[in-house]
Amino acid sequence: MTRPVITFATDFGPAAPAVCRGVMYRIAPDALIIDISHQIPRYSIREGAGTLVFALPHMPVGVHVAVVDPGVGTERRGVAIHVARGDTLVGPDNGLLMPVAKRLGGILAAHSLENRDLMLPVVTSSFHGRDIFAPMAAHLAMGTSIEVVGPAIDPASLVRLEAPQAVVMEGALESQVVHVLIYGNVTFAGTPADLEAAIGPLEPGRRLVLEFPALKGAPAVREATVWERTFGRVAVGASLLMEDSEGHLSLADNQGNAAERLGLALDRPVRIRPA
Amino acid sequence: MTRPVITFATDFGPAAPAVCRGVMYRIAPDALIIDISHQIPRYSIREGAGTLVFALPHMPVGVHVAVVDPGVGTERRGVAIHVARGDTLVGPDNGLLMPVAKRLGGILAAHSLENRDLMLPVVTSSFHGRDIFAPMAAHLAMGTSIEVVGPAIDPASLVRLEAPQAVVMEGALESQVVHVLIYGNVTFAGTPADLEAAIGPLEPGRRLVLEFPALKGAPAVREATVWERTFGRVAVGASLLMEDSEGHLSLADNQGNAAERLGLALDRPVRIRPA
Amino acid sequence: MTRPVITFATDFGPAAPAVCRGVMYRIAPDALIIDISHQIPRYSIREGAGTLVFALPHMPVGVHVAVVDPGVGTERRGVAIHVARGDTLVGPDNGLLMPVAKRLGGILAAHSLENRDLMLPVVTSSFHGRDIFAPMAAHLAMGTSIEVVGPAIDPASLVRLEAPQAVVMEGALESQVVHVLIYGNVTFAGTPADLEAAIGPLEPGRRLVLEFPALKGAPAVREATVWERTFGRVAVGASLLMEDSEGHLSLADNQGNAAERLGLALDRPVRIRPA
Repeated sequence: MTRPVITFATDFGPAAPAVCRGVMYRIAPDALIIDISHQIPRYSIREGAGTLVFALPHMPVGVHVAVVDPGVGTERRGVAIHVARGDTLVGPDNGLLMPVAKRLGGILAAHSLENRDLMLPVVTSSFHGRDIFAPMAAHLAMGTSIEVVGPAIDPASLVRLEAPQAVVMEGALESQVVHVLIYGNVTFAGTPADLEAAIGPLEPGRRLVLEFPALKGAPAVREATVWERTFGRVAVGASLLMEDSEGHLSLADNQGNAAERLGLALDRPVRIRPA
Repeated sequence: MTRPVITFATDFGPAAPAVCRGVMYRIAPDALIIDISHQIPRYSIREGAGTLVFALPHMPVGVHVAVVDPGVGTERRGVAIHVARGDTLVGPDNGLLMPVAKRLGGILAAHSLENRDLMLPVVTSSFHGRDIFAPMAAHLAMGTSIEVVGPAIDPASLVRLEAPQAVVMEGALESQVVHVLIYGNVTFAGTPADLEAAIGPLEPGRRLVLEFPALKGAPAVREATVWERTFGRVAVGASLLMEDSEGHLSLADNQGNAAERLGLALDRPVRIRPA
Repeated sequence: MTRPVITFATDFGPAAPAVCRGVMYRIAPDALIIDISHQIPRYSIREGAGTLVFALPHMPVGVHVAVVDPGVGTERRGVAIHVARGDTLVGPDNGLLMPVAKRLGGILAAHSLENRDLMLPVVTSSFHGRDIFAPMAAHLAMGTSIEVVGPAIDPASLVRLEAPQAVVMEGALESQVVHVLIYGNVTFAGTPADLEAAIGPLEPGRRLVLEFPALKGAPAVREATVWERTFGRVAVGASLLMEDSEGHLSLADNQGNAAERLGLALDRPVRIRPA
């Protein structure tokens, strides 16, 4: 018999998640709790959503609780979402859970978190991770039915993020930074197929230019790089554009930090064209 | 049958705690070890004590080992403390464990850690976390009686921290910073009841001023803020004084970092008065 | 019956390891996965090897997967190594695993990781931690024989690190920095016995001088210190040279960060002589 699985991702930093783990273990003492990350940039729903898309497909089927919640203490809803792969997602209704819900096969049912019997006795206005989301997730992991957490809600009413898209132009791809990995690799909206639709076949070694316009005080940046399949094809310190392990376009420095070197952050627009 | 529970908090940073976890798992292979935090500011007994008070009430009953130990290698004792809730606390006798011992119902018994059979074969002078505290905690979690770790000691002889108190003045509360949370919220000594005793009823929206005198090179700071129940009541970037999830007075910026913005750190005095 | 044990060390930072943990738990749902560290300095094989030597002797016998892999995507091999203590080490064949293999009793057998049935269905060129090392380790922890991962290889063909050695001179020990601990203690190549061979008996309180020549823009540093057994023997903020918990020569500041104060990093040469 396998343990109930709970995964856990937040923007809380190092200390606060332990309290939530304690709450969950008191309800589900035999659970396997897997921490995804607690260093999601604070209040960045988009970074949190990206982290979940990156991690949850590789996790065992289970309950996944995620908290990036700039609206804590306001009227935003808490939700539990049952998806086609068999998982249940728990967190705020602010878009955080939607991309990974799609990735795990789509939404079968959604319920609002309203049953006070499944929360801590005292619910504060500033720490719903501990008081609502953690105990709800633990009860669900122990077998409580999703119908018990609160009334069913129309999946179409759930808050959605606006997902950035790459735009295929004549001779260039217009895109933007959608994720910065911890070691400085930069993911752009779009795929190699999108880039090929704009500029033709991507042969290894093809020379490319990335143009980042000036933004919010950051100066314009122009990066000459090369299309390659793997780090080992460029010199140490040099950059390459590649397909990352998720199928996205990714700019990386071989043994370096591209984001830091070029001063790139989330949402920075970019135009990719042949050199 | 549930697993024996061990929680673990230190100021060791990321790598050293794993060694202690290994030591504990070798003695207690079926234990559930819950990491509280290993990023307590180095040698800050008061921050460590605050972390334990914040986290342990939400943990399952078990053995809790904590190491913030500027006196390692000197004559300070190691202790195991049995508290009324049923937990056993393990760590240095330097005040670190005392506030949480009180919070968990008070001390029933205390023993000095002296039984060499429950330590690693080689005890170094610089890493008691690994050589003494971790193996002692694991043996206790496996059912070893607290009497076996060493002789009983008088709880009155345990080292105590001097706890900062708020002082109710005519028209103002004199307090100080007792905790800085990782995302910049600042906790002060005292409760809303203390503040009301000094300045009268705290209606939502009441305007307040916090005065921080100059200290150790940090300039004097004056912060105009407002009493509210929840972040959502002030604009993004604005501050509020609120009751935190533990019942303490807390200054926070809505989606910001108040401690960083105002340059506040542990022990900084403050005077809170009406605007 | 005890759980299969997997330990896990990488230079991935906070988010990527969770994906690998998910992969392992899907294959080995009852495993105990112990994180050693994921903050090894990126691509520093020597720091990674030092971390493993520090931690693994204290871990339960099991499967230990470690990934510090500047050659990912090139032709370097992946290996599983069976050692005399009974453990199996899994990672890239770049020297990372060799010092700890020796520490755990030496190599009994080594196999190249080639069996595609034990990898993820899609193997990317940039994330072998997830696609190859994690699933291989989980299968081994579940009882898959090491012969199944791939063909046996001659242990003498495994890549080795060049280990820095201390050199005993007339009246001085020539050494270098081999490890910097997270709180700033600095480990040098060589032991107290090596230093005594060079300068005679190390009585507590003996005054010593450490000379670090200028290197890569860092100015020359001269540190007057004292040989002591424990921090408590010197004033707060003062330094001492001591034997660390692993038997190596170690420079430390009492409640301070010696590496930061003196600007020391891995590989910095040093000459230790009497004052």
